[in-house]
Amino acid sequence: MIILIDTQDKEGLIHKVSSVLLDMNCNIQKNDEFVDKESNHFFMRTEITNVYQISKDKIYKSLKQILPNESNIKIYENNKKSIVILCSKEAHCLGDILIKYDTKEIDVEIKGIISNHRNLEYLAEKFNIPYFYIPHTEQNWAEKTLQKCKLLNPSFIILAKYMQILPPKFVKEFDNQIINIHHSFLPAFIGANPYKQAYDRGVKIIGATAHFINDELDCGPIICQDIMQVNHTYTWKDMQKAGKNIERIVLVKAIELAIENKIFIHRNKTIIF
Amino acid sequence: MIILIDTQDKEGLIHKVSSVLLDMNCNIQKNDEFVDKESNHFFMRTEITNVYQISKDKIYKSLKQILPNESNIKIYENNKKSIVILCSKEAHCLGDILIKYDTKEIDVEIKGIISNHRNLEYLAEKFNIPYFYIPHTEQNWAEKTLQKCKLLNPSFIILAKYMQILPPKFVKEFDNQIINIHHSFLPAFIGANPYKQAYDRGVKIIGATAHFINDELDCGPIICQDIMQVNHTYTWKDMQKAGKNIERIVLVKAIELAIENKIFIHRNKTIIF
Amino acid sequence: MIILIDTQDKEGLIHKVSSVLLDMNCNIQKNDEFVDKESNHFFMRTEITNVYQISKDKIYKSLKQILPNESNIKIYENNKKSIVILCSKEAHCLGDILIKYDTKEIDVEIKGIISNHRNLEYLAEKFNIPYFYIPHTEQNWAEKTLQKCKLLNPSFIILAKYMQILPPKFVKEFDNQIINIHHSFLPAFIGANPYKQAYDRGVKIIGATAHFINDELDCGPIICQDIMQVNHTYTWKDMQKAGKNIERIVLVKAIELAIENKIFIHRNKTIIF
Amino acid sequence: MIILIDTQDKEGLIHKVSSVLLDMNCNIQKNDEFVDKESNHFFMRTEITNVYQISKDKIYKSLKQILPNESNIKIYENNKKSIVILCSKEAHCLGDILIKYDTKEIDVEIKGIISNHRNLEYLAEKFNIPYFYIPHTEQNWAEKTLQKCKLLNPSFIILAKYMQILPPKFVKEFDNQIINIHHSFLPAFIGANPYKQAYDRGVKIIGATAHFINDELDCGPIICQDIMQVNHTYTWKDMQKAGKNIERIVLVKAIELAIENKIFIHRNKTIIF
Repeated sequence: MIILIDTQDKEGLIHKVSSVLLDMNCNIQKNDEFVDKESNHFFMRTEITNVYQISKDKIYKSLKQILPNESNIKIYENNKKSIVILCSKEAHCLGDILIKYDTKEIDVEIKGIISNHRNLEYLAEKFNIPYFYIPHTEQNWAEKTLQKCKLLNPSFIILAKYMQILPPKFVKEFDNQIINIHHSFLPAFIGANPYKQAYDRGVKIIGATAHFINDELDCGPIICQDIMQVNHTYTWKDMQKAGKNIERIVLVKAIELAIENKIFIHRNKTIIF
Repeated sequence: MIILIDTQDKEGLIHKVSSVLLDMNCNIQKNDEFVDKESNHFFMRTEITNVYQISKDKIYKSLKQILPNESNIKIYENNKKSIVILCSKEAHCLGDILIKYDTKEIDVEIKGIISNHRNLEYLAEKFNIPYFYIPHTEQNWAEKTLQKCKLLNPSFIILAKYMQILPPKFVKEFDNQIINIHHSFLPAFIGANPYKQAYDRGVKIIGATAHFINDELDCGPIICQDIMQVNHTYTWKDMQKAGKNIERIVLVKAIELAIENKIFIHRNKTIIF
Repeated sequence: MIILIDTQDKEGLIHKVSSVLLDMNCNIQKNDEFVDKESNHFFMRTEITNVYQISKDKIYKSLKQILPNESNIKIYENNKKSIVILCSKEAHCLGDILIKYDTKEIDVEIKGIISNHRNLEYLAEKFNIPYFYIPHTEQNWAEKTLQKCKLLNPSFIILAKYMQILPPKFVKEFDNQIINIHHSFLPAFIGANPYKQAYDRGVKIIGATAHFINDELDCGPIICQDIMQVNHTYTWKDMQKAGKNIERIVLVKAIELAIENKIFIHRNKTIIF
Repeated sequence: MIILIDTQDKEGLIHKVSSVLLDMNCNIQKNDEFVDKESNHFFMRTEITNVYQISKDKIYKSLKQILPNESNIKIYENNKKSIVILCSKEAHCLGDILIKYDTKEIDVEIKGIISNHRNLEYLAEKFNIPYFYIPHTEQNWAEKTLQKCKLLNPSFIILAKYMQILPPKFVKEFDNQIINIHHSFLPAFIGANPYKQAYDRGVKIIGATAHFINDELDCGPIICQDIMQVNHTYTWKDMQKAGKNIERIVLVKAIELAIENKIFIHRNKTIIF
């Protein structure tokens, strides 16, 4: 079991939590804490072995009793998380997720792939994943996509180079559950065609950023970023090609962190253990 | 000798240049070419051994004859370049240049250090470099600084964390000769306190950028950039401290490239061989 | 067309080659040279547009005439290269090649996959690649594998985590054509289970190395290497899992360099343009 | 105050330690734990504010009572650590430590510099550090160096490119206190001239390793490592020059970790919080 606690920092929090767990014979396997001094906020992630199989509910109540009222407590069983993937025409991020899923490198259930194009449907078929074609020419594509996602009910929605902006209603329904890959080192090059922007600026490094989606374009909490060196010989098409590796790796890294319950979101930032 | 040629791309340029050099018994030791397809512009950097010590002037004329009229031809003897360093209160970039200068790791003459503060004067003295104190409280600081630089007449002016904006007149006088270190991964976090900006945005990577100064703040041609990973445990002060290594390395790298005549500036970009 | 020349260094080589090409109206699109001072050996890679479609043979003869006798001259048309992949049980390198092949990210023909196990056969089928099962329990597996490779006649043989040592006869038949991925930062941790070795040594960085195979185990010319930081929390199984990304990327990078004719092999090293 | 505890792992250790600290009103500011599953060993590093200024001794005793007998407990006040630097002829690591010391970037006292050469004496003088010249031509150089170190009694001895092997007696006297920088990515290229070895092998990455000294050459517990990409254009002298930045950074990083009490040594590895 994995327990995530965040709350206003106070003396003795670790002691209190460890007391409760000890009383219930829940052995701590791994424990991480962090205090954000700026907001005086405490974060704790604990992996336990629950020897007597005490129910999630009972553990929750016991923790609730000893922690301040406004504390966030989340307890996760060790069961498999699920995702829905939204993509457009580019294959590299989707392909990487699919092959790593297929070879069990990412331990996740893929409940479906939704796209506004048909060209990646054959990939979905190859890996036996349901594929839903919702073109953006349809006026209500966002609503249809939202309804499909609600029906599939995944742990996370992954935007694997989905070239559409989700409306606020959608984002609100899946608050802190939508992960996007942006093909630049955010906050540089927000918006369309970041490689072209990077080329025009003459940068010597390009990057990619995985982040949660919120209502402001490319401004949600950053999960992870990576970069690579480029030089004057790179056209923007070369940057785009070279950047695919970074995008793939950063997005899959973010998915892994999310499904392993390693991410806290606090204000506009992530705390990652 | 080092020859830098850039010109509109045409067929046979390499052949023509190599003919001229062969005729004068200038053996090519190292040769780099690049064609920017977007602007159809040709760049060539050639290191030669000038067996018969033919004069720079004669080589220039011979190349001029066979190259298109509008070509830029620069010929550098293998003599030592010089710099003037402008700094404010932070010691790390200046200190790194000085110690590498002192131990002959950077092969450059330092003609002087100009600062708007007195606190680094002791460092200049340690390494026997003339130190000029020009406070920014004086109305004509920019003009005085410019006049001092003109008097010292360096190959390059290095802004080693100089926290003042040079006026257009200054920049124009030392066009393509002023190198700045900006403590962010440009174009992210232009302007003041980029580490604070980076912290507020919650980035997972911080960086530094060495670039030539032009009239737009932090927008000149980028020479080199580097980055490091950070995480949620970094306050912005931690980022600032950690970033010093990146700043130091990137600035010194840029100085080395400049004094070794390895940089072409083309429009708002650099070509670096 | 791509022309690779390597020969004892002499004055005027670039001039001579550029003369010949100019005479045949072959425009140089991209040109790289390097002189290895230690062995006084010259390397040149030239991409040309062959306006009048002059035959490969004619170009070869023209270059042969003006270059020293012992020169190596290779001319490649812009046609697609082919590979045969040898693998054992691990899916990640094979999977990455297949998905990048399928989505046209690597522009290569895969003539077949040979394995000593059956467990990856389903992957080959998914991507419609012929799969040949040659178990190592059979005494003549090496000979059978060699014969199959000769029949398939690929440009390169890719060992994508093939856990068998190829006999000298095999290596000789495909001299400088067999690329292996070794899951360590060579020359550290030669031989079996490098991640276990790395864990036992307590390293803080793990890596992977793509190299050509020669007769000495893990000692062939290195093509590319990459690394990642690890720390004390990594078991060797964690290193193995984390290292997969590095292995994948390094192997595919090496394949790309090989099929784009960017690699010279000189003694026990590679020159890569 | 900083408390380092390591002991055989048992249930309830965090709880017990946090109880003791809470009882003495020592607020936990930062806490890190790690359990090495292979050896079933527990590591804990805790930064506390000691509100009532309870003595180190009293805290030690209280912890001793509740922890298993064989536990290692170390308590450090927040006072400045000291180092003695041993160097030979190369200036870059020494210079970097001195300039960072001078500009307060490393918060350490340098008690002295010992060298078997005179050429860096001027640097010591520049920064007002006592310099002791003990040439290796003297038969008892090791004993003399040891006696000088014992007299100076530093927290750590830093081998900043000290090209001599310290005898076992020396190493034993300063067990786990001697930090060396080796100019390769250990365990590759143990022993003399690693850049030459790296060049001969044709590697595409070079590195540096900071490690504690033990009785086996270049085999002590690794503290940190870093690398940089090289290519065929690098001679081994170029690698040596380029590697200086990596050496400098890695050595200073190790010094910082050591003086901030962030390193546990366990068997032949380090646990670093």
